[in-house]
Amino acid sequence: MLIIAERLNCTRKSVHRAVSSKDAPFVREQAVRQAEAGADYIDVNSATGVQTEVDDMKWMIEQVRAVTDKPISVDTANPAAMREGLLLHGPSQPMVNSVTGEQARLDAVMPLAAEFQAKLVALAMDDTGMPETVDQRFVAIEKILKAAAHHGVRTENIYIDPLIRPVSTNPTHAVDCMETVRRIKAEFAPLKTVGGLSNVSFGLPQRHLLNHAFLTLMVQAGVDAGIIDPLEPGAVGTILATEALLNRDEFCMNYICASRDGRLG
Amino acid sequence: MLIIAERLNCTRKSVHRAVSSKDAPFVREQAVRQAEAGADYIDVNSATGVQTEVDDMKWMIEQVRAVTDKPISVDTANPAAMREGLLLHGPSQPMVNSVTGEQARLDAVMPLAAEFQAKLVALAMDDTGMPETVDQRFVAIEKILKAAAHHGVRTENIYIDPLIRPVSTNPTHAVDCMETVRRIKAEFAPLKTVGGLSNVSFGLPQRHLLNHAFLTLMVQAGVDAGIIDPLEPGAVGTILATEALLNRDEFCMNYICASRDGRLG
Repeated sequence: MLIIAERLNCTRKSVHRAVSSKDAPFVREQAVRQAEAGADYIDVNSATGVQTEVDDMKWMIEQVRAVTDKPISVDTANPAAMREGLLLHGPSQPMVNSVTGEQARLDAVMPLAAEFQAKLVALAMDDTGMPETVDQRFVAIEKILKAAAHHGVRTENIYIDPLIRPVSTNPTHAVDCMETVRRIKAEFAPLKTVGGLSNVSFGLPQRHLLNHAFLTLMVQAGVDAGIIDPLEPGAVGTILATEALLNRDEFCMNYICASRDGRLG
Repeated sequence: MLIIAERLNCTRKSVHRAVSSKDAPFVREQAVRQAEAGADYIDVNSATGVQTEVDDMKWMIEQVRAVTDKPISVDTANPAAMREGLLLHGPSQPMVNSVTGEQARLDAVMPLAAEFQAKLVALAMDDTGMPETVDQRFVAIEKILKAAAHHGVRTENIYIDPLIRPVSTNPTHAVDCMETVRRIKAEFAPLKTVGGLSNVSFGLPQRHLLNHAFLTLMVQAGVDAGIIDPLEPGAVGTILATEALLNRDEFCMNYICASRDGRLG
């Protein structure tokens, strides 16, 4: 499973402060620590404001690139910032985070994903709003796939995010996400799946218990990528433990190596 | 899911020592703490030796009964000790732990389970030895069910243990156990399932990660009971978190109440 490391996100106060003050050591350290902890992609979210976002995205990507060659998930709702991020990305395959099934977003983001042959996170929602049911998600997914075909974005590069919402607000949110992932694997392969997995526990106590159990359930459902904090104790370890239990880790070698490297958390 | 609390087991040195020296406060405290942590059954294993086991079982059950009305899982390979334990059990439904598909065990234990109308843990193995495949488990299960019918033990009182073995020795051990549970739920209802869940991680580092992920996977597979240490941080919490995620805990009330009572660990 791909690990997309989520810490370099300007919606977090400490990151916003570091980016605003051009605190390069802080940003670089976050990138290095996440890479060492097992990140496959470093997410870079530059949501600092309309006036500053393009420059901040460029600066953040430069900092990450100064310390690691890991591919980057360019995370912004601003197409200009996304383009600048992709231009600076370097030779590995970038990730675009994100598009939705909303027409304006499809028109803005699909051409960039095609031009840079990027992996693309696509949220399973459309102009009708946040999905409440599995079927509503698939209406949005159909729109996304149609636009992807039109723009020449390959299906295997698309990672559908079923939009994980708090189980505290609706008891079917978690099972709906698992069901969406299973249906995509069964009916839409080689389409891929991704989740921002910690939303599920919002509003409940001892969130790590819910987050880790949900990680296990989503890994079993077949999710291809997770947007997680690899420095959170037990997050990477839970993924690797689950893969070992599900016979997806021959001789438990990934698990054992991660333990030796101190990456189980 | 039923929680069978495993700490009062004389194969553990501290318990063996306490039972040998008749350290009643130690045994009673273990029973109380496990009950408070969420145990539905208190397992009592009196494996101290052929000469002493009957008396030790009686003494242990008297200590547990002195502090809690929770039903007890009478855990012994000695039929005389099992009978004494069942006689002392009290009015709630006891559990017999365990029988196998081995003929001598069936002959010894099934009459006791029938006489005391007990729940019965039945290990999915027979005279051919430990099972290597799912199909071998079902050969043993058929023998157990046949003997149960013969002796008048009701199917819904039988908890099949698929014999969870370390994933480090065979990468399919965990998925085989999950598959066994799923097939029992699908094809043999109202037959029930149980697992001694921590064996899965034997020989691997940071066992709690594997144990908790496996708990989640087994709860999802539909296991009816788990033999666990409810005082191990995160064990009960992982079960309740998984049930909340799977929409088996309305409004997350069990989870939230357990948090308030300090039972999530």
